[in-house]
Amino acid sequence: MDIEGFRTAGYAAIDSICDYYESLRERPVNAQVQPGFLAKSVPDSAPEEGEAWEKIADDYQKIIMPGITHWQHPRFFAFFPCNVTFEGMLADLHTAAISNPGFNWSVSPSVTELEIIMCDWVAKMLGLSTEFTSASASGLGGGIILNSASEVAITVAIAARERALTRIESLEAWEKDQGAREPVSEDSGSAPLTGEQDKAKTLPQGQASQATSQLANWRGKTTSRLVLYGTTQTHSIAAKAALILGISFRALKVFAKDEYALQGETLKAAIEEDRAAGRYPFMLVATLGTTSSCAIDNMTEIAQVAKSYPELWIHVDSAYAGVALTLPEERAKMDIAAINECVDSFSTNLHKWGLVQFDCSPLHVKDRGALSRALTVTPEFLRTRHGDAGTVLDLRNMSLSLGRRFRSLKVWFVLRSYGLQGLRNHLRGSILQAQLFQKLVKEGQTPLKIVAKPRFALVVFRLEPAGVIEKDALNRAFWDALEKRSSELTLTQTVLPEIGFCIRWVSGSLWTRDSDVEASYKVICECADAILSS
Amino acid sequence: MDIEGFRTAGYAAIDSICDYYESLRERPVNAQVQPGFLAKSVPDSAPEEGEAWEKIADDYQKIIMPGITHWQHPRFFAFFPCNVTFEGMLADLHTAAISNPGFNWSVSPSVTELEIIMCDWVAKMLGLSTEFTSASASGLGGGIILNSASEVAITVAIAARERALTRIESLEAWEKDQGAREPVSEDSGSAPLTGEQDKAKTLPQGQASQATSQLANWRGKTTSRLVLYGTTQTHSIAAKAALILGISFRALKVFAKDEYALQGETLKAAIEEDRAAGRYPFMLVATLGTTSSCAIDNMTEIAQVAKSYPELWIHVDSAYAGVALTLPEERAKMDIAAINECVDSFSTNLHKWGLVQFDCSPLHVKDRGALSRALTVTPEFLRTRHGDAGTVLDLRNMSLSLGRRFRSLKVWFVLRSYGLQGLRNHLRGSILQAQLFQKLVKEGQTPLKIVAKPRFALVVFRLEPAGVIEKDALNRAFWDALEKRSSELTLTQTVLPEIGFCIRWVSGSLWTRDSDVEASYKVICECADAILSS
Repeated sequence: MDIEGFRTAGYAAIDSICDYYESLRERPVNAQVQPGFLAKSVPDSAPEEGEAWEKIADDYQKIIMPGITHWQHPRFFAFFPCNVTFEGMLADLHTAAISNPGFNWSVSPSVTELEIIMCDWVAKMLGLSTEFTSASASGLGGGIILNSASEVAITVAIAARERALTRIESLEAWEKDQGAREPVSEDSGSAPLTGEQDKAKTLPQGQASQATSQLANWRGKTTSRLVLYGTTQTHSIAAKAALILGISFRALKVFAKDEYALQGETLKAAIEEDRAAGRYPFMLVATLGTTSSCAIDNMTEIAQVAKSYPELWIHVDSAYAGVALTLPEERAKMDIAAINECVDSFSTNLHKWGLVQFDCSPLHVKDRGALSRALTVTPEFLRTRHGDAGTVLDLRNMSLSLGRRFRSLKVWFVLRSYGLQGLRNHLRGSILQAQLFQKLVKEGQTPLKIVAKPRFALVVFRLEPAGVIEKDALNRAFWDALEKRSSELTLTQTVLPEIGFCIRWVSGSLWTRDSDVEASYKVICECADAILSS
Repeated sequence: MDIEGFRTAGYAAIDSICDYYESLRERPVNAQVQPGFLAKSVPDSAPEEGEAWEKIADDYQKIIMPGITHWQHPRFFAFFPCNVTFEGMLADLHTAAISNPGFNWSVSPSVTELEIIMCDWVAKMLGLSTEFTSASASGLGGGIILNSASEVAITVAIAARERALTRIESLEAWEKDQGAREPVSEDSGSAPLTGEQDKAKTLPQGQASQATSQLANWRGKTTSRLVLYGTTQTHSIAAKAALILGISFRALKVFAKDEYALQGETLKAAIEEDRAAGRYPFMLVATLGTTSSCAIDNMTEIAQVAKSYPELWIHVDSAYAGVALTLPEERAKMDIAAINECVDSFSTNLHKWGLVQFDCSPLHVKDRGALSRALTVTPEFLRTRHGDAGTVLDLRNMSLSLGRRFRSLKVWFVLRSYGLQGLRNHLRGSILQAQLFQKLVKEGQTPLKIVAKPRFALVVFRLEPAGVIEKDALNRAFWDALEKRSSELTLTQTVLPEIGFCIRWVSGSLWTRDSDVEASYKVICECADAILSS
């Protein structure tokens, strides 16, 4: 395709996206295809000769589209929203046009500098303190944009692990009166790498030595004592981060009476128990807005406990609800003061409810050094004049991957075009829709019960007719009936402790209107009534 | 922005990209800005009210563009190429328009199914055996598209680690006559998670037990015995994967006489030495096309050694050169037979020389089970009917992150529009340009010397006038002079063992013509002559 061919194809693509959004409401919400559907339409190897663009563009609509679930659909109430705006699409188009791997400042200065500035915008927008921005007093605060809350959890856990190992090593050295420890040689061998070693700008090579084996043994033994904390309601990304790093994960108990929020006494008791057993709780993933019920861990109590255990890295995962901090009326409820006081790292997904399309997970930290000490490796071919001089941040040293997409451009486009007022209007609109849904559930004839305190735009409910004992079985049947209507609306199943199987409804699409909320309630009632009468 | 606003803004964006490519040759290759330049033009917080789109689009050209290094520029000869095509841009535009996190088959079946089929296309295109495709006899082979070779290295290392720990555990059990081992309870406590535990579909909770602490201790102690192998020329992604997982990394020596290729005897000697010392070499990152000199590890010898050490997971990182396997004339030189014989996993970056823009790193494995056993965690809210039934692959269980962008669409668009012939023409064109550059260097008057065997489109050279002893100092001065001409061309520095500081030139942009190669040689000679005469 040449430049003029692109102009023609590009206009046509823009038109097809306009058609898509004009017809969105008429499309089935969930893809109505069966496993293996695509292999019938796509050959099993690439064509030898190039094909005409018109044919490819046509196949996209005919072959791919039927297998797409429309997350922007006005009646998509499943999982959490995955917003996209036209401004974000244009940013991704431009990003692709100037494609570059962005790993160093030098390889595209705008990619690094806009990311740093946009993270500052987001921190201020959310009410995070200056310590989470590049204007922090320490000079070490700020953000980085990663691809997902999963990647955030892994990245933070690595930094927290290295901080913990360093502290334990210091502690052990102190206990041995700083004299009796075996010296650890750094000059050669198969050593467990640390960012510190990178100072020599070389990678270890050659033969293994006894001293480095001792260091590896010490790290292995000590790492096995580390415990990563979440709750039973923490997203599985925390357990997965532990799984990936080979570290123990402990899911602390939370209770319905506390609205599934982690309490300070639970945290304190677990720390004391683990420490007494020789383990070292090194990180807590606290959640503001859990997936199942939007529970908000008790940050005031966590901050209080944290004072006695400064070795515990506190990460706040607020993948969905974090953007609600943009609303002044929500900040106190979400305990922003405690967050600013006690938290080491904070992350929200703008690609959920925040108008910026997937992928866009800003991670804010008070100490970037904790990331770069854990993640820096610089071979010669990645050295640059500015990097060596320390006049720039090379963001690869704060993330798992070397390369990074130009994600900040979509943040810039969206926040400028919408303004903070536009984002707030979007958030408040979704919350109002959830309130409408609650009203319908509460006032309707169908015996639906809201089983967890509704928060933001999430409502968790289930069918609770009088007298039925097997409520879980009933609700699983109810769920099966709802799944059969997935062309009309989508929801998500979950299980809440002390309650059991229940169903989540969450608004958040830019295209949802009150009539869609009412239509969703109508389908839900039809399924419920059918189950109850059978 | 509403639908009609998007139509207008979209056409304008397409036009601006056409203008960009028409003017590409006239732009400075490298951004000519200083650290901190952007903060002068971007305010320090988001606007309260939305701004007009025309202003934002205009600022993109005026504020962001000067800080972009043009990786598609015809005189970009640095790092490795980072191709983009118009077809890929259109795919990213469509991907943004239907934005979804793609974590399960159900949440957008086309995202999962096209990814599986495109990985099969790529495997066949490269000459990988059927065992690396979904048509494998085992039913377990196939690919997944990750964001970078870094993410690939980490993902594979986790799978290899779990395979190793499982083997060592079995071995120890056998050694203890399968009776004397302490039983390991799985019912509660802060256990190190394994994919196996996920069978219960719950996360561990409650109190820690002694048995699970013993398991954690065993894993920690055993992990400290693991060693990940690369060579001194392996990309830093391997050392970084080890750093991230807290595992020892050993850089095996390679030599100029072997063109920096890992030899079988070096590998064998290291394995024997480490095993004798009680360590467990569990994974080798072999490279086809190293960054510094495009060295190709001796896969025939590695395959031979691997027969005696089946516990060693062999991963091939062919981030740059892998796409050259599309050329039949390169396959034997790259030892495709040995790759198919001995390798557990293979990865190339289509976003380098393969016409599909960043990010796009397919990873091919013979045993997907090794990935999913290491990486599966399924909370209730991620369960689906098809996932539970095992009728579909949920790709999140084979990668670090839950969410994934729809990367396969750009592969489909590009490979169909170009056809394999179009891709081969592109690759052969870059190789011919590199041959032209070599000819100029060899036949020119300036005392430039090619210091490593040129491969594909990479040429490594340095200034070697007769009689100069401090060649490294001379070449660093030469490099400084070349950097001052970065608006006219870009190159990359590196250091090769036994040679020292040298300079890399690599072609690969779709926009490079022979005249650009000649122009680059002219600038290089001007800088060299200026240094030599000073």
